[in-house]
Amino acid sequence: MSSNQTFEIYCAGKFITTSARHTVTNPYDGSEVATTFLAGDDELDQAIKAAQNITDELRNIPSYMRFNILKQISEELFSLRQHFAELITLESGKPIRYALAEVDRSIQTFVVAAEESKRLPAEYFSIDWTVAGAGKEGFVKYFPIGIVAGIAPFNFPLNLAVHKIAPAIAAGCPIILKPSSLTPLSTLMLAQIIDKTALPKGAVSILPMNRETGNKLVTDERISLLSFTGSPEVGWKMKSHAGNKKVVLELGGNAGVIVSHGADMEAAVTKCVAGGFSYSGQVCIHTQRIYVLKDLFESFTEQFVKKVKLLKQGNPIDPGTDMAIMIDEANAIRVENWINEAVKGGARILTGGKRENSFMQPTVITGTREFMQVCSAEVFGPVVVIEPVDSFAEAIKRINSGRFGLQAGVFTDSINEMNLAFNQLQVGGVIINDVPTFRVDHMPYGGIKDSGSGREGVKYAILDMMEARLLVKNC
Amino acid sequence: MSSNQTFEIYCAGKFITTSARHTVTNPYDGSEVATTFLAGDDELDQAIKAAQNITDELRNIPSYMRFNILKQISEELFSLRQHFAELITLESGKPIRYALAEVDRSIQTFVVAAEESKRLPAEYFSIDWTVAGAGKEGFVKYFPIGIVAGIAPFNFPLNLAVHKIAPAIAAGCPIILKPSSLTPLSTLMLAQIIDKTALPKGAVSILPMNRETGNKLVTDERISLLSFTGSPEVGWKMKSHAGNKKVVLELGGNAGVIVSHGADMEAAVTKCVAGGFSYSGQVCIHTQRIYVLKDLFESFTEQFVKKVKLLKQGNPIDPGTDMAIMIDEANAIRVENWINEAVKGGARILTGGKRENSFMQPTVITGTREFMQVCSAEVFGPVVVIEPVDSFAEAIKRINSGRFGLQAGVFTDSINEMNLAFNQLQVGGVIINDVPTFRVDHMPYGGIKDSGSGREGVKYAILDMMEARLLVKNC
Amino acid sequence: MSSNQTFEIYCAGKFITTSARHTVTNPYDGSEVATTFLAGDDELDQAIKAAQNITDELRNIPSYMRFNILKQISEELFSLRQHFAELITLESGKPIRYALAEVDRSIQTFVVAAEESKRLPAEYFSIDWTVAGAGKEGFVKYFPIGIVAGIAPFNFPLNLAVHKIAPAIAAGCPIILKPSSLTPLSTLMLAQIIDKTALPKGAVSILPMNRETGNKLVTDERISLLSFTGSPEVGWKMKSHAGNKKVVLELGGNAGVIVSHGADMEAAVTKCVAGGFSYSGQVCIHTQRIYVLKDLFESFTEQFVKKVKLLKQGNPIDPGTDMAIMIDEANAIRVENWINEAVKGGARILTGGKRENSFMQPTVITGTREFMQVCSAEVFGPVVVIEPVDSFAEAIKRINSGRFGLQAGVFTDSINEMNLAFNQLQVGGVIINDVPTFRVDHMPYGGIKDSGSGREGVKYAILDMMEARLLVKNC
Amino acid sequence: MSSNQTFEIYCAGKFITTSARHTVTNPYDGSEVATTFLAGDDELDQAIKAAQNITDELRNIPSYMRFNILKQISEELFSLRQHFAELITLESGKPIRYALAEVDRSIQTFVVAAEESKRLPAEYFSIDWTVAGAGKEGFVKYFPIGIVAGIAPFNFPLNLAVHKIAPAIAAGCPIILKPSSLTPLSTLMLAQIIDKTALPKGAVSILPMNRETGNKLVTDERISLLSFTGSPEVGWKMKSHAGNKKVVLELGGNAGVIVSHGADMEAAVTKCVAGGFSYSGQVCIHTQRIYVLKDLFESFTEQFVKKVKLLKQGNPIDPGTDMAIMIDEANAIRVENWINEAVKGGARILTGGKRENSFMQPTVITGTREFMQVCSAEVFGPVVVIEPVDSFAEAIKRINSGRFGLQAGVFTDSINEMNLAFNQLQVGGVIINDVPTFRVDHMPYGGIKDSGSGREGVKYAILDMMEARLLVKNC
Repeated sequence: MSSNQTFEIYCAGKFITTSARHTVTNPYDGSEVATTFLAGDDELDQAIKAAQNITDELRNIPSYMRFNILKQISEELFSLRQHFAELITLESGKPIRYALAEVDRSIQTFVVAAEESKRLPAEYFSIDWTVAGAGKEGFVKYFPIGIVAGIAPFNFPLNLAVHKIAPAIAAGCPIILKPSSLTPLSTLMLAQIIDKTALPKGAVSILPMNRETGNKLVTDERISLLSFTGSPEVGWKMKSHAGNKKVVLELGGNAGVIVSHGADMEAAVTKCVAGGFSYSGQVCIHTQRIYVLKDLFESFTEQFVKKVKLLKQGNPIDPGTDMAIMIDEANAIRVENWINEAVKGGARILTGGKRENSFMQPTVITGTREFMQVCSAEVFGPVVVIEPVDSFAEAIKRINSGRFGLQAGVFTDSINEMNLAFNQLQVGGVIINDVPTFRVDHMPYGGIKDSGSGREGVKYAILDMMEARLLVKNC
Repeated sequence: MSSNQTFEIYCAGKFITTSARHTVTNPYDGSEVATTFLAGDDELDQAIKAAQNITDELRNIPSYMRFNILKQISEELFSLRQHFAELITLESGKPIRYALAEVDRSIQTFVVAAEESKRLPAEYFSIDWTVAGAGKEGFVKYFPIGIVAGIAPFNFPLNLAVHKIAPAIAAGCPIILKPSSLTPLSTLMLAQIIDKTALPKGAVSILPMNRETGNKLVTDERISLLSFTGSPEVGWKMKSHAGNKKVVLELGGNAGVIVSHGADMEAAVTKCVAGGFSYSGQVCIHTQRIYVLKDLFESFTEQFVKKVKLLKQGNPIDPGTDMAIMIDEANAIRVENWINEAVKGGARILTGGKRENSFMQPTVITGTREFMQVCSAEVFGPVVVIEPVDSFAEAIKRINSGRFGLQAGVFTDSINEMNLAFNQLQVGGVIINDVPTFRVDHMPYGGIKDSGSGREGVKYAILDMMEARLLVKNC
Repeated sequence: MSSNQTFEIYCAGKFITTSARHTVTNPYDGSEVATTFLAGDDELDQAIKAAQNITDELRNIPSYMRFNILKQISEELFSLRQHFAELITLESGKPIRYALAEVDRSIQTFVVAAEESKRLPAEYFSIDWTVAGAGKEGFVKYFPIGIVAGIAPFNFPLNLAVHKIAPAIAAGCPIILKPSSLTPLSTLMLAQIIDKTALPKGAVSILPMNRETGNKLVTDERISLLSFTGSPEVGWKMKSHAGNKKVVLELGGNAGVIVSHGADMEAAVTKCVAGGFSYSGQVCIHTQRIYVLKDLFESFTEQFVKKVKLLKQGNPIDPGTDMAIMIDEANAIRVENWINEAVKGGARILTGGKRENSFMQPTVITGTREFMQVCSAEVFGPVVVIEPVDSFAEAIKRINSGRFGLQAGVFTDSINEMNLAFNQLQVGGVIINDVPTFRVDHMPYGGIKDSGSGREGVKYAILDMMEARLLVKNC
Repeated sequence: MSSNQTFEIYCAGKFITTSARHTVTNPYDGSEVATTFLAGDDELDQAIKAAQNITDELRNIPSYMRFNILKQISEELFSLRQHFAELITLESGKPIRYALAEVDRSIQTFVVAAEESKRLPAEYFSIDWTVAGAGKEGFVKYFPIGIVAGIAPFNFPLNLAVHKIAPAIAAGCPIILKPSSLTPLSTLMLAQIIDKTALPKGAVSILPMNRETGNKLVTDERISLLSFTGSPEVGWKMKSHAGNKKVVLELGGNAGVIVSHGADMEAAVTKCVAGGFSYSGQVCIHTQRIYVLKDLFESFTEQFVKKVKLLKQGNPIDPGTDMAIMIDEANAIRVENWINEAVKGGARILTGGKRENSFMQPTVITGTREFMQVCSAEVFGPVVVIEPVDSFAEAIKRINSGRFGLQAGVFTDSINEMNLAFNQLQVGGVIINDVPTFRVDHMPYGGIKDSGSGREGVKYAILDMMEARLLVKNC
């Protein structure tokens, strides 16, 4: 990919430039990846107006056409798989093999959306449960909620945007998507695919923008739903400024794992290493904390640290690279500080702990205390805390202790422990015999407590983008 | 019922008094109905703490016990049916036959909640749609969201509170319910029934309170869901102060009816009179606007006005009374002013239009314009606007013109018109061959646009009170 | 209960006598319990004609009325609980505490049917998945299939009949029920309750009959569904003579249990004793075979045999009695012969094995081989085979080895073993940590292989009694 | 396509020949289309054994692989669309434009099956509705029923076979499909596509066979489900010989249409002509009878006859041909005789009525009586009966009068008439504002009365191919 490429932004069905030129750089070497543009208030207003104009047309598109549009996007994405993956790697510093996996997931997300667009929710029921309802029947159908504003983060620049765009198309809602200004390129390339479909112009706009214009997405009353994926602090603040509109928040956490008896230990170690260090831990469901039953602790930890040390570091564009830099040096410094703080408080580093520019070594710590930031805050970096626990019950208590509740992993063969985990862990998802980092694109995904509200996963995101309408009729 | 009765309030499982003595008066004759008490910040705090303490216990109650508790409440309510109805009439001025209907609906609401408590939502799906999910299956179960705060209005003092209490018990959520301070007595009598069940103490608190303490229900972060039924202005403001908690708003509207061809005109007239004037129009889904196809207009209007004139006015406690006073004189004056404003603007009164203290005559107006308050605002009084329209399409446009969207009624025998109405009316519910005032307690009920967000109706209210938790396991 | 009671049979809405007088005797002491009558071809024909006459009326009963009828039956059954239980004990020899449990289950079966009658299946879907379906939507509703013939066995004289009657009322199908001529009294007493409801006369007929008339239930083409509960031999033969009608078969089996690690052994023993010997093993899901992991075998068997020896034998009408006689001496002799055959083939009796008239001792055998009748056939008597197995996989293979597949129980705490059991056991139901004898009345119940086809359990029985009708309409 | 082509049959994963050489001729000109082979008892036995061998492997294929297999078949079918259509035309005499439509439907049927294979039915419910179920939860999953035998007719040689093959693959059942020996070629060509997928060999066999071997499909106890599409006489007889296996029958009928007020008459005429004469009426849901409200009769009939006369007759391979020959002369003679019989009984021919060899003119008759074969039997030829009726109620009565009940069409704009039709027409499907001939491949399709039992339509066919298994577990 040549470095002087220019990406126009996709506003109201047109590719345009603006006066706010914006350079995207490669976090690995600081080189310029491409030039694009930031939308201002005017462009946002155009996008909203175009969306309003085609709202009815979009709502009335028949199932087969919706299906065909989503399938076409999926197929074109597949044909440009390698190209998209390279772009993701260049803009985000994500190792290419994870970037390829991300593109594959986006392809699948569009496939699922195509299928779900033919299966929008609807419900029939009898009304005559009392005399008042005699001779009547009820029928509930769901209608698109209106214009959706989507705000996507840098860490899955393509797929977390697709998790808003694909359901919006399936539901029949216009969407204005703001990608992270660090990583807007892959969604802008997706815009080129979308533009070729039969979707009415204005149904999708992809607009990188500065924070001020971005705030308008939150406050503008013409928008009916704000779907935000990002940090808890930003997310909850947006909710309080969102006026009457509906808000879906997909925020982060400090996801924990319990390692108990009867599980396949080798598999558990392998999965925990992947969950802890893929994309340098810059993943919402990054495996941040591992609680191991005490009699398994020593052996598990030894194997775990051994495997972490084998992670291959290097240029993310190299197919063999397991781990590269973080998104920027500021974040790497923040993580370094948190580690140092923990060590000062009595924690021990089992491996890693060093930083060089924006590269942070894969780091394993033990001996922490719950109030330390590496435990209680979202570390969003290549750091895993591993601690022994006396009992399964204690592990549950430790995972529940903080303010977050996204997903948790539990390695066990015990039915009883599975039930305890599911009933007592205060999270959106419990993954048995895998890490909390597990996600497939059709499952309901989202957190409770400070980790968010609402669920993504195509079918669930569609539901959030629609509102029920009841028909009561004679029968 | 003796007039000097005292109702203790139900706080954290105990019937208590407070220093804030509160008198409830009969809106019909101003006589004192009973004395009760307002909760202050301390009592609210006790109720919240008690709710927190029994959250786990409540969540773990087995289905059959939940069912038995709700069934017991329903049966005791049935055995005190007349007594409850009289209390409603005394506190609210609602004609006794409507009060009896309200009690019957509350009995039914608890029956439905009992049944739904055994059928809480859950979902299974295969996870292996891609290689990443091989060997896994998914299962979604819903867990109680936490403490619910319910705020209920004066117009259905019992049943609109029950629409929050019964689902909360079914879902396993503690609830703190604030009844209207105008009409707190029937819910406090319900508290006496609830207190006799096996529910843990603190699961339900019924606390009349002043506005300041009421605001704490909105802002306190220990509460997970605020469910408000009341006026749009208050509701939307609460949403913006509710912090991270979920908010369900059941607000009002200016519901419209379309009268087209092929329907049973006599039935349509009868239903429209009931929809327009029951409880003096103080109903969220009051039939406020009637649009009649022009060739039917004259005949329909003549019959309608004739029937309105037959409405029997009198003391609400008299079984023959169709219509009595409004809740207070301030509201009657407001309605009178709106009518006068319309007349000044060119509208004509077909019947009614006069006020005496808090009694407002049943009033039918025509020749209005859309911006008039009797059309565009929520009149919440015994006023019906009736207008001819050139076409079905125009009627739809007129109904959609304002800021509200709760329910609409359509009298027709045309499949095509039914489809147009359902697809194009911007409302939460379209009632074919009945008035928008139609509601049975198990149907999803609620509005779009400024009429609210979220749905009540037992099953739907339960869903709002729970949050999804995913289990991914080997299969 | 006086012994000279007479029970008229319930034919086409009338209680009648016939020329075929029929005496019901107490299997415990041979005393006469009551006199009733057998229906002949004429009475059956009257019942069918009455059923035909009210088919439309029955189908059109609104939900609330169906609900009320079923609830009324449930409540009257509850008020006569002890009376019904005694009648069951007298006609069947079932110990009174199991008879009381049976009445409780019948009460619950009617409760569930009442609830399900308001929730009959229906489905909406979009039709426009291809251009051919543009502008259309689909809706599936279920309509009653027509007249149902139910044939019920002696072992749960009330509840297995109720599992046909209650769903038929809920579905809106007329039903003609043939109880076992050994035990017709409790269903005839139920008929007296049913007769008091608002059901159209002819909706339910309860007709004991001889085999020849009974065969007409199978062959008559005016009947749309035959629902048979009884022995495999009779059931499968009926299916081949049933003509065009639909056939549901709830037959027997030789249900097996696996006892593996991690389960609560004391609870397992207690449950296995109950599953093996309640009502002398005359239960379709009688726990006939127990496979214990070899390292647990000795301890489990010792505790099991010890508990079996504690079973209190006596007059079934005595509340303390655990086990009484079998239904008749012929069956007791058959069971004795099977035990003797096994012993000759090398099996050992751990306890029991002796017979006195129709009383067969609770018997535990080990050292059997799969081809022996106590293993491979349905023993339907107080005999349990207990064997050690080398592995969980072997236990699965043993359970799958025969021609039956009704239910199986698995005691384990292993997720992996639970998955293996569910995926590999060829049965209709797998019960984790309980015996195959486990049944609640709303769960789907029924077998595969030679154990039957179709499912009972109220909702599932209703579904079998209805047929889908599709509506395709413009949308 | 060269005329001397040879099609090997697809047995147990291999393409084989047999000693029973079989020639397929073009019904239009009697020319030889191709040579193939008939399977005998040995080949059938091999196919069954191969199916048994891979039953477990097939059941355990993960969703994504099932999906990929079905998608691959769909895509290859699409790439050979024209080729398949020509083959259908050559073997069946179906006009090429209808043959192309059939191929398109088969492509879609595989798409739907791919999607449904990821959404197999499953259900969760709470077990603790009574104390007996405390601490337990229930889960129902569906498992493949075993080997399916499919028997497909000549009239949709590809798609009616695909309606058995695609669901079988989705459900995980091996299938042995017997195409009509008149038209086996398109399914044998499909076998070549299937053979290239990752399906285990033996999962699908396509075996033309003579009647005697075909009967073994009915009687062989190793087969678990017989799915037959064909004539009522053959179907019901098969059911009585099918032993313990499950039987699904998709038979024919004498489908009727009601033409009432408010519908688009021009559209109604056009659809009725297509429904009455496409593929010379050799369609299960052929529009055989049209009942027109009397005041519309004259005008409707005039337009209808005019359009029928415009149907272009000719060589089916010619893209402009609307109607060609019947499948063979015997059937054409039968139809001619039925017409003559009607005329002798007083009916009048409005157009058509003549036969030449196997070509039967498109024929419209009126003045018939219900007992005539053109009314009461399945005409399966290019004959439409059109009659005036006094009322909508009479039209319903006329449609219900016979022994069949497949689908019915109703042209109306009345909600009331739509409700009457849906509630009272004794059919499997009621199509509003379209002909009974309407079918899309995902809708439930099938008849009641003598028209069959069970439903096809991918999701519904899958359900028939699976059986429920319950898991009860601790929770």
